[in-house]
Amino acid sequence: MASSNNARESALTFARSEQGRCLDELKAFLRIPSVSTESRHAADVRHCAEFVAADLRRMGMQRVEVMPTGGHPSVYAEWLGAPGQPTALVYGHYDVQPVDPENLWTTPPFEPSEREGYLYARGSSDDKGQTHIHLKAAEAYLKTVGRLPINLKFIIEGEEEVGSEHLPALIRAERERLRADFVVISDGAMFDRGVPAICYALRGLAYWQIDLVGPNADLHSGVYGGSVANPIEVLAHMLATLKDDQGRILVPGFYDDVRDIDPAERAQLARLPFDEEKFKRDLGVEEVFGEAGYTTLERRGARPTLELNGIWGGFTGEGSKTVLPSRASAKLSSRLVPNQDPDRIGDLVEAHLRKVCPPTVKISFTRMAGAHPALTPLDHPAVKAAERALQQAFGKQPVYEREGGTIPVVATFARELGAPTVLLGFGLNDDHLHAPNERFLLENYFGGIRTVIALLDELAKQ
Amino acid sequence: MASSNNARESALTFARSEQGRCLDELKAFLRIPSVSTESRHAADVRHCAEFVAADLRRMGMQRVEVMPTGGHPSVYAEWLGAPGQPTALVYGHYDVQPVDPENLWTTPPFEPSEREGYLYARGSSDDKGQTHIHLKAAEAYLKTVGRLPINLKFIIEGEEEVGSEHLPALIRAERERLRADFVVISDGAMFDRGVPAICYALRGLAYWQIDLVGPNADLHSGVYGGSVANPIEVLAHMLATLKDDQGRILVPGFYDDVRDIDPAERAQLARLPFDEEKFKRDLGVEEVFGEAGYTTLERRGARPTLELNGIWGGFTGEGSKTVLPSRASAKLSSRLVPNQDPDRIGDLVEAHLRKVCPPTVKISFTRMAGAHPALTPLDHPAVKAAERALQQAFGKQPVYEREGGTIPVVATFARELGAPTVLLGFGLNDDHLHAPNERFLLENYFGGIRTVIALLDELAKQ
Repeated sequence: MASSNNARESALTFARSEQGRCLDELKAFLRIPSVSTESRHAADVRHCAEFVAADLRRMGMQRVEVMPTGGHPSVYAEWLGAPGQPTALVYGHYDVQPVDPENLWTTPPFEPSEREGYLYARGSSDDKGQTHIHLKAAEAYLKTVGRLPINLKFIIEGEEEVGSEHLPALIRAERERLRADFVVISDGAMFDRGVPAICYALRGLAYWQIDLVGPNADLHSGVYGGSVANPIEVLAHMLATLKDDQGRILVPGFYDDVRDIDPAERAQLARLPFDEEKFKRDLGVEEVFGEAGYTTLERRGARPTLELNGIWGGFTGEGSKTVLPSRASAKLSSRLVPNQDPDRIGDLVEAHLRKVCPPTVKISFTRMAGAHPALTPLDHPAVKAAERALQQAFGKQPVYEREGGTIPVVATFARELGAPTVLLGFGLNDDHLHAPNERFLLENYFGGIRTVIALLDELAKQ
Repeated sequence: MASSNNARESALTFARSEQGRCLDELKAFLRIPSVSTESRHAADVRHCAEFVAADLRRMGMQRVEVMPTGGHPSVYAEWLGAPGQPTALVYGHYDVQPVDPENLWTTPPFEPSEREGYLYARGSSDDKGQTHIHLKAAEAYLKTVGRLPINLKFIIEGEEEVGSEHLPALIRAERERLRADFVVISDGAMFDRGVPAICYALRGLAYWQIDLVGPNADLHSGVYGGSVANPIEVLAHMLATLKDDQGRILVPGFYDDVRDIDPAERAQLARLPFDEEKFKRDLGVEEVFGEAGYTTLERRGARPTLELNGIWGGFTGEGSKTVLPSRASAKLSSRLVPNQDPDRIGDLVEAHLRKVCPPTVKISFTRMAGAHPALTPLDHPAVKAAERALQQAFGKQPVYEREGGTIPVVATFARELGAPTVLLGFGLNDDHLHAPNERFLLENYFGGIRTVIALLDELAKQ
């Protein structure tokens, strides 16, 4: 369509000439410390939602609204001026992970800094930078031809990093307003630098904390040592029962609902240009480690995990305090694959830990977050449109891959809206997500904007 | 001896009438935050040494000196005006443990507070309160009759809580000045409230830290989970190999040098008025736990331990951070019994941990403190004098017991001075040593002063 091609070209030209301003706006977005898990940042999270809403209004989106939830708000916007064309719902999140240990950041986490083609800041890749791509792509159409090729809705939430606790209820309540033919999300990674990817599977998540209490106070390890259970020792023994030395999870029933990887998919994963030696070099490890019988790529995307995220107890300061501690705790979580259910896995893990806990300590088990795994049909027209858009923007055919991470909302969109999700990640796997020195490759940020400009046009009915 | 009895009575009368002042002085001593393990308190430790020296000068001790060491100083004083009489060396320490977690203290650790007959403060029992007993007993003689029944020396150190690193060299260098017929130490506990005790055995100590490093940065548990070793998981598996479920230490060779408890001693320990139900109630535990085949009292004093003192790694804050951590660490230590050697036990533990450490992580092992165990001859005249003094002051025959804790210097005094040590503990086992709300029973403080006044006289040759 000539007219469509003209609109696309206008948008692309605008995006190219406005790169400096877009980047400045992204930096302003990144300066807001919207750490959703820390209550002291509640006002910053709120401020960040208002920041996003203001940008959506400025670019010409309609019915822009900061929607209250039981926790941090979500931002909604729509543009429905293309009757007869499909409707896409773009999801993103403006909240970010905590920054500790802050002393390991080369530059402060909320002062964006450019180095060697990367933009360093908390949230630069996960997910402010990738959300911003969609805002700026829509803006490029609205500010040039005054319309979009298709109907578009945005839902940008503020609780992704704390398990999207209130989002399912919001989606249920606003089902009619959010109705769309498909969902588009950019909250993941390309396969590698220069190798764009479309992700067709996400892992789910279940997260728990276990707290053990032995004696009712910290004790002198000389006076009491050897005569009463040590909660750290008990915890180590309990945690050691979770997995064998071959990386196989030993919780009874854990694998019952896992859908096997079929041979065709194994073959396709094996063809991906994955360099295991480089992977080890990048992580600084001598050897990889994971479930026996599976490759690293299979372990990262197609198999479930049981990972220890944190542990603490007793004296952890400088020097040598001879204490027999009263308490010990750990945080642990599972990444789930189809058809595992986070509640059922929580039941199994809790039952196992309670069973292996001796009567010498008191145990408490807290469930902290849960999300279902998800799969996307590969033959959906929106998936094919995304493939063409990535090809045009990055000059390379995208690969299809599984994502090891979790976007809890994908399963919710499937259930509540009946809409499949197209996952277009513009991050890289070494973006240091959830870690010090998070970064986002600037060529992916600008390439992402070009991709989404092309995608919006490719999605229009010819 | 009538004159001696008169002196003793004068000293006892003085001590009784001066109780209020003595307690005020002890509180001033306790207000100094002399935490030897924390470098930020170095000036406080120094100030505390000067405080002790000033008190010794004021009461009339001679050659008072704050002796430099490679670390925190020791305080020396002597009174040698009783030719022909034996010479006792009193050892104590003016340094204290750290106070964390400070939020669990009912009243601030360095603001002494009296409640229900106890004095609460860091160091109240370990060991400022018990050291103060000896100062005030000597003062009671010097301020009344102007002389002591025997020759007396003090060595009060400032590094006991960090393993007395520099004390052995000081004792070696000052061997002539420190020469004594026996050593008296109060840095332990009575058997129970109203049941005084003489301790004839101390456990030694060896303390270590283990640090594991896996990937070179904290990783996203979704992107990487399942494909690379998790240092917390590795640490839990390694620590679980240290002991079996029956409390038996599995480090090869660990028990090789342990002297068995002989049947007579087992019988004597079994006769002690120990109430295991009360012990469990006091600690708030449903069951005791320790090495199979031994009683609680045997486990606490006569058997070696391998205890986890601290553990940390990954995310330990509020909420749920989905991180696969780069590092995990633990502090652990052994209480040693005759004839175990701290260096050899360190070699065995290190060799075991290195052996069970997989190649997926890097391990480092740090040795932090070491002390030999010690035994005292029960038939020494000073031991018999102590028995009579305790009987007189507390109206009850003392029991003889093993102490689970460590006073590193006892083995050093035996080696360097050839002097046996008499261990007179005036604390209680629930004094919350090394823990929040450390306390000292005031009736033991004042009873301790009366005991030592009697002891100094009982030690004089009749």
